[in-house]
Amino acid sequence: MINKLVSKISDLQAPIVVGLDPMLDYVPDEVKKLAFEEYGENLEGAGEAIWQFNKAIIDATYDLIPAVKPQIAMYEQFGIPGMIAFKKTVDYCKEKDLVVIGDIKRGDIGSTSTAYAVGHIGKVQVGTKKYAAFDEDFVTVNPYLGSDGIKPFIEVCKEESKGIFVLVKTSNPSSGEFQDQLVNGRPLYELVGEKVAQWGESHMGDSYSYVGCVIGATYPEMGKRLRKIMPKTFILVPGYGAQGGKAEDLVPYFNEDGLGAIINSSRGIIAAYKQEKYSKFGSVNFADASRQAVIDMCQDINGALARK
Amino acid sequence: MINKLVSKISDLQAPIVVGLDPMLDYVPDEVKKLAFEEYGENLEGAGEAIWQFNKAIIDATYDLIPAVKPQIAMYEQFGIPGMIAFKKTVDYCKEKDLVVIGDIKRGDIGSTSTAYAVGHIGKVQVGTKKYAAFDEDFVTVNPYLGSDGIKPFIEVCKEESKGIFVLVKTSNPSSGEFQDQLVNGRPLYELVGEKVAQWGESHMGDSYSYVGCVIGATYPEMGKRLRKIMPKTFILVPGYGAQGGKAEDLVPYFNEDGLGAIINSSRGIIAAYKQEKYSKFGSVNFADASRQAVIDMCQDINGALARK
Repeated sequence: MINKLVSKISDLQAPIVVGLDPMLDYVPDEVKKLAFEEYGENLEGAGEAIWQFNKAIIDATYDLIPAVKPQIAMYEQFGIPGMIAFKKTVDYCKEKDLVVIGDIKRGDIGSTSTAYAVGHIGKVQVGTKKYAAFDEDFVTVNPYLGSDGIKPFIEVCKEESKGIFVLVKTSNPSSGEFQDQLVNGRPLYELVGEKVAQWGESHMGDSYSYVGCVIGATYPEMGKRLRKIMPKTFILVPGYGAQGGKAEDLVPYFNEDGLGAIINSSRGIIAAYKQEKYSKFGSVNFADASRQAVIDMCQDINGALARK
Repeated sequence: MINKLVSKISDLQAPIVVGLDPMLDYVPDEVKKLAFEEYGENLEGAGEAIWQFNKAIIDATYDLIPAVKPQIAMYEQFGIPGMIAFKKTVDYCKEKDLVVIGDIKRGDIGSTSTAYAVGHIGKVQVGTKKYAAFDEDFVTVNPYLGSDGIKPFIEVCKEESKGIFVLVKTSNPSSGEFQDQLVNGRPLYELVGEKVAQWGESHMGDSYSYVGCVIGATYPEMGKRLRKIMPKTFILVPGYGAQGGKAEDLVPYFNEDGLGAIINSSRGIIAAYKQEKYSKFGSVNFADASRQAVIDMCQDINGALARK
């Protein structure tokens, strides 16, 4: 799956991933109205609204992008109907041959981590049969519990040729509270980064490991250093756009081959129609605004990479 | 909700929580057979099997215990039908007036953490209405992302009088890889513990904070130290029994008032019928074996507390 991700990025010249994090506020009133009329102004209606919103954006962008990153929290908040919308979104993206990165940030130990792994990127045994439950291609994982939390995921990745992205340095302002603490003179996130590189050696694709990491766009100096510590690790980069990360700052996240990183934008793409820049599309054509925002984002990042 | 937990523990003389982590292997064949006959040997059948298994154990133990801790991974692995079994379990436990600690170990930032919080312990806005989705009383939360990850949960806790347990020192062998790293001569978990105590000050119950923490039973020396750093923090303690934690070791997790900690047992209770000690019950009476295991666990822990 990491090979597929790399080749799609190269073919499309698009080192980007669209974050499908559909806040209900992002969904145009027209879409919500239809969903609420059919299912009620309730959790089912909300699930339907975000699914229809996603579907339109996927239809408008799938030929331009290698991957999507649905943020499961935005679905989980609507309970079972939300989880159904998540599953429909994953399935639909896979029909469109998109690589699906489940942003689930799970992390536990032993058999519990295994359960998360089989549920999201593997197959669960039921009696004599095996079933894929949520069936993403990659998931994000939290490293706080150490190797006991990560290795069960890697075992499942090996069986399924799937992958994970381990949180190393997150994009938020307070990420330094624990992640930046100095351990023998070096920040904790570097230690985590080294571990990620080690874990990754056990499950390599052609040029990059199936074990990737997450480094926020908002910390470019750290991204630059971590890039060197983890040369074979693909970096998933949140924080571009709305959170303040700029294309120029992201150049050091890439390797000399122009690969090695994939930049996420959520709000900036899926709620593009709300920006003044794309207001001409209007809320009815929200998906066309998203398509234009994808084109602009690719240009922005490829431009910065060309200028380096 | 922390006041309810404390008073139930006192009234029942039971500082314990039953971990509802139903591996399909724990479910007796008779229960699985019925579920598979009705729904098929598939995800629906698995969901039904674990729900019926849970229901029997809850019926056999609810009058003896203050709380349950369903581990969501064990449900999530079965996809939507698993999540439905999780929701049924939460609802049924609340009908029985049990405090429900959702062991979800979520953690993200900003609006994403808010989404997890409203989905699990709060209410989500849909149009003009609000709905509780999964509706647990407490959830476990991962601190790796710092205050940005925790504060949105605390905001929801304040609105709902609900609580969280933040991972501080986990019970697994490799938990020290990152958690024990020395920062200015002190282990990271102590730093996290101090933060938990600070966060907790902003949302206090009568004698303990709504912001609790998780410390594994397998690290009693660290538990002892952390108890002093966080005197008003309720400690959720996994790792008793199957993972090796012993009652004597757990005494320092409690305060002088005999409160301040709640010890979890999962396998040891819900799969008690598989132990030689309880084999006389037989698999048909698995729930009676669980009841006896609860009684024995209370005796074991109360005995150790009395001897201190």
